[in-house]
Amino acid sequence: MDAVDALGTAAALEQAKKSYAEGGIPIGAALVQHVSAGSAPKLIACGHNERIQKSSATLHGEMSCLENAGRLKADVYRNCTMFTTLSPCIMCTGAILLYRIPRVVIGENATFCGGEDLLLANGVEVVVLDDRECRDLMSKFIAEKPEEWNEDIGE
Amino acid sequence: MDAVDALGTAAALEQAKKSYAEGGIPIGAALVQHVSAGSAPKLIACGHNERIQKSSATLHGEMSCLENAGRLKADVYRNCTMFTTLSPCIMCTGAILLYRIPRVVIGENATFCGGEDLLLANGVEVVVLDDRECRDLMSKFIAEKPEEWNEDIGE
Ligand SMILES: [Ca+2]
Ligand SMILES: [Ca+2]
Ligand SMILES: [Zn+2]
Ligand SMILES: [Zn+2]
Repeated sequence: MDAVDALGTAAALEQAKKSYAEGGIPIGAALVQHVSAGSAPKLIACGHNERIQKSSATLHGEMSCLENAGRLKADVYRNCTMFTTLSPCIMCTGAILLYRIPRVVIGENATFCGGEDLLLANGVEVVVLDDRECRDLMSKFIAEKPEEWNEDIGE
Repeated sequence: MDAVDALGTAAALEQAKKSYAEGGIPIGAALVQHVSAGSAPKLIACGHNERIQKSSATLHGEMSCLENAGRLKADVYRNCTMFTTLSPCIMCTGAILLYRIPRVVIGENATFCGGEDLLLANGVEVVVLDDRECRDLMSKFIAEKPEEWNEDIGE
């Protein structure tokens, strides 16, 4: 795993755990800017699902991360990877496509699989890590709070 | 125009004008719940683009409306129309699909056309009004603040 992926996966998982500790849905995300070879990658922002914490219908992990990043120029997004602990839903997929983020690294897609096909069809590089810690955390939450989880994915 | 559409289009346009008056991007949205014949439709929430007002990268008109609506159960969304003064971008399209909102009424799609094809491909009813007031307001803003507009659509 290179420096970009090490930074992004750790930040996203930390956010997921933070949300779980707050009683929230344990999905985290991080936006990391690629930089020239030899320089350290830059963590632009991170965030976690805020449905329970903020009664939010839009702040999924990825959306929260993009919101925390604030206003950015188009060329910044185009040199970033979006990290997320869980496969992005169709809303978050749309946000990634809007800003033309070229690469998405997904912790796991076993508990839920969202818009990966649409990302791929639009030329986005998609990496699925099948990470056990992401999967176990999400499985635990779904077993504990199935109604909140269903609400989060519109079911 | 029936009572649902009269309520929704007026609320969305009012939001777009409010945003323009605040110096913001003039795109408004409204979520209206259909009710049984003979009852008045219910305005669940409305909202407008908040890029400039809140330095937000995610609060497009439709997203702001969904956020203002708060947490709703799945069956509420499935009996609603989303009204928006401008064709929804791919992020907002994704949000509409996530919550399986079955109908979208669009003020105009001449100044920008977003994810209408994806809505249609997923069985969403799409109505485009080609409303002159929506188009004129958006055209005026794009001429006045082209950089803010490009940023809002990731360009
Ligand atoms: Ca928090
Ligand atoms: Ca306002
Ligand atoms: Zn999502
Ligand atoms: Zn949008």
